[in-house]
Amino acid sequence: MVAPVAAGCVIGVDVGGTKILAGLVDPGLGVLHRTQRPSHGLTRDELLARLAELVAEAAAAAPGPVLGVGFGVPGMIDRRRGVVAAAPHLPLDGVRFEALMAERTGLPVAVDNDGNCTMLAEWRHGAARGCRDAVTLTVGTGVGGGIVANGGLLRGSSGGGAEIGHMVIAFDGPPCQGECPGRGHFEWYASGNAIGRAGLELARDMPGSVLGRELAAGREITGALVTELAHDGDEHARAAIRLVGGRLGAGMVSLVNVFNPERIVVGGGAIAAGELLLGPAREEVARHAMPSLADGLEIVPAHFGAEAGMLGAATLAFEELAG
Amino acid sequence: MVAPVAAGCVIGVDVGGTKILAGLVDPGLGVLHRTQRPSHGLTRDELLARLAELVAEAAAAAPGPVLGVGFGVPGMIDRRRGVVAAAPHLPLDGVRFEALMAERTGLPVAVDNDGNCTMLAEWRHGAARGCRDAVTLTVGTGVGGGIVANGGLLRGSSGGGAEIGHMVIAFDGPPCQGECPGRGHFEWYASGNAIGRAGLELARDMPGSVLGRELAAGREITGALVTELAHDGDEHARAAIRLVGGRLGAGMVSLVNVFNPERIVVGGGAIAAGELLLGPAREEVARHAMPSLADGLEIVPAHFGAEAGMLGAATLAFEELAG
Repeated sequence: MVAPVAAGCVIGVDVGGTKILAGLVDPGLGVLHRTQRPSHGLTRDELLARLAELVAEAAAAAPGPVLGVGFGVPGMIDRRRGVVAAAPHLPLDGVRFEALMAERTGLPVAVDNDGNCTMLAEWRHGAARGCRDAVTLTVGTGVGGGIVANGGLLRGSSGGGAEIGHMVIAFDGPPCQGECPGRGHFEWYASGNAIGRAGLELARDMPGSVLGRELAAGREITGALVTELAHDGDEHARAAIRLVGGRLGAGMVSLVNVFNPERIVVGGGAIAAGELLLGPAREEVARHAMPSLADGLEIVPAHFGAEAGMLGAATLAFEELAG
Repeated sequence: MVAPVAAGCVIGVDVGGTKILAGLVDPGLGVLHRTQRPSHGLTRDELLARLAELVAEAAAAAPGPVLGVGFGVPGMIDRRRGVVAAAPHLPLDGVRFEALMAERTGLPVAVDNDGNCTMLAEWRHGAARGCRDAVTLTVGTGVGGGIVANGGLLRGSSGGGAEIGHMVIAFDGPPCQGECPGRGHFEWYASGNAIGRAGLELARDMPGSVLGRELAAGREITGALVTELAHDGDEHARAAIRLVGGRLGAGMVSLVNVFNPERIVVGGGAIAAGELLLGPAREEVARHAMPSLADGLEIVPAHFGAEAGMLGAATLAFEELAG
């Protein structure tokens, strides 16, 4: 930690499973410089070296002092010890990330879960601004989450909380993919992958449909493809998204009944489906959440897009390192 | 609100759906006087009058000044306005409870959800003492809950949050009973009623079993009866409790992954089943929660029994009315 400084920039780094996005960010959340590099296939040492390179590159572009670096990492962060407790898509398990990156960059470092970073960006500067109680869902490959409760970011006892994608919404459901030992989790049913999976099932069941013909032509039925076809008006693609939207809504019912938030902010790649996805989710909440808890609730698209994680990591750096 | 006072007693009132328990409580949480009266079948006015009578009776037993009265109400409390937003088992919907009871008792009044009161008692004086992040489950007719997150009681944006019993754990499950419009909720699968229901199913499937013979003899198969038979060693009754314990564990998996608590405290009538219920819940959590989030977690029985709500209401009064 350094003493509070009146002005200056920070560097925000979104350490994704496939790419790293680093930005030099000013106090108004303006991005003065940005770089992106792949992260997949790297060893631990290569990854840490690449992160240090990106930070050095961003720092070189700074017109004044750099106050610190914030990292958003997709995994569970033990913030008491500054350690990455578990990161399914990166070779960082057990790494003393905060200390190592401070050493390699020569700058003060803050690290948090990527979902928490996204929440921080939306809460301080975006769609959850001014909320005392809010939930952010990042619906992409999986479902990431961030929670503001009691006017503070909910991190749990070891800084690993708010794994909203791993709420149980079907206790006898299929096993999670990756390192989570659970089953029937929210992200299985309500992610971008779930849209692709629902589309694939329809494609197999109905070979004559547009989806069926795409499958026969050898195309991979992804969430993105299903969304594209749905926007073009294809009824089956729309049905696949509607199914997933309803299940997204089922998870939201839990969140409403437990957190009673003012706003649920939905971002991530799957939000490309827009109201085709959010409409059925809203309907499910209207029908099945406790009315007095859903009263006044808004379900809104995220303000920030693909840069939410990076901007949130920068916000983290401003809050934790710049006083 | 009154100015802080150094000593003196408060009155805690647990306004249950079938009975009211009022206690005169000293700062060390000693109960100097207690009264209990039925609450069912009363009109709104009769109920408010009875509450005022019980408070007057407790106040008359006080050796010194009474600082205020805390009420725990089973329902959703809009704490911004001091109003009971919804109370499925009592004629209090929409009642300006805080103002009305202050008028009728002549004392400062605080009101909260009964689950939050129980959490407060366990957090300040019981099994969740010293926790920054903890969850309390009251497993009785339904499943009540209380959450401490970020070192504060989680109440949600309108003071109605922490309805843990209404998390979705099976999105295509059966509808909730009472006024909740949802389906597949935690309390359907993991309450004392669920134990009775599981026992009834076994009794019907196996007429020759002890449970089957109890049913044939005209006895109602309740959670309490199943628990009694299980303690006597009956294998089918144990199987019913094991089934419910596993589902209690499935809900706990959600709570662990989202809140990353240090402790989950389980109370309520169903805890009479003890380890027969908690054992399978612990196993489910050990197998299916994210290991780094469950690391260090303790699942423990509540410290307070049937008086938890009343003592929590008293704690609320001390915290909110006595400075």
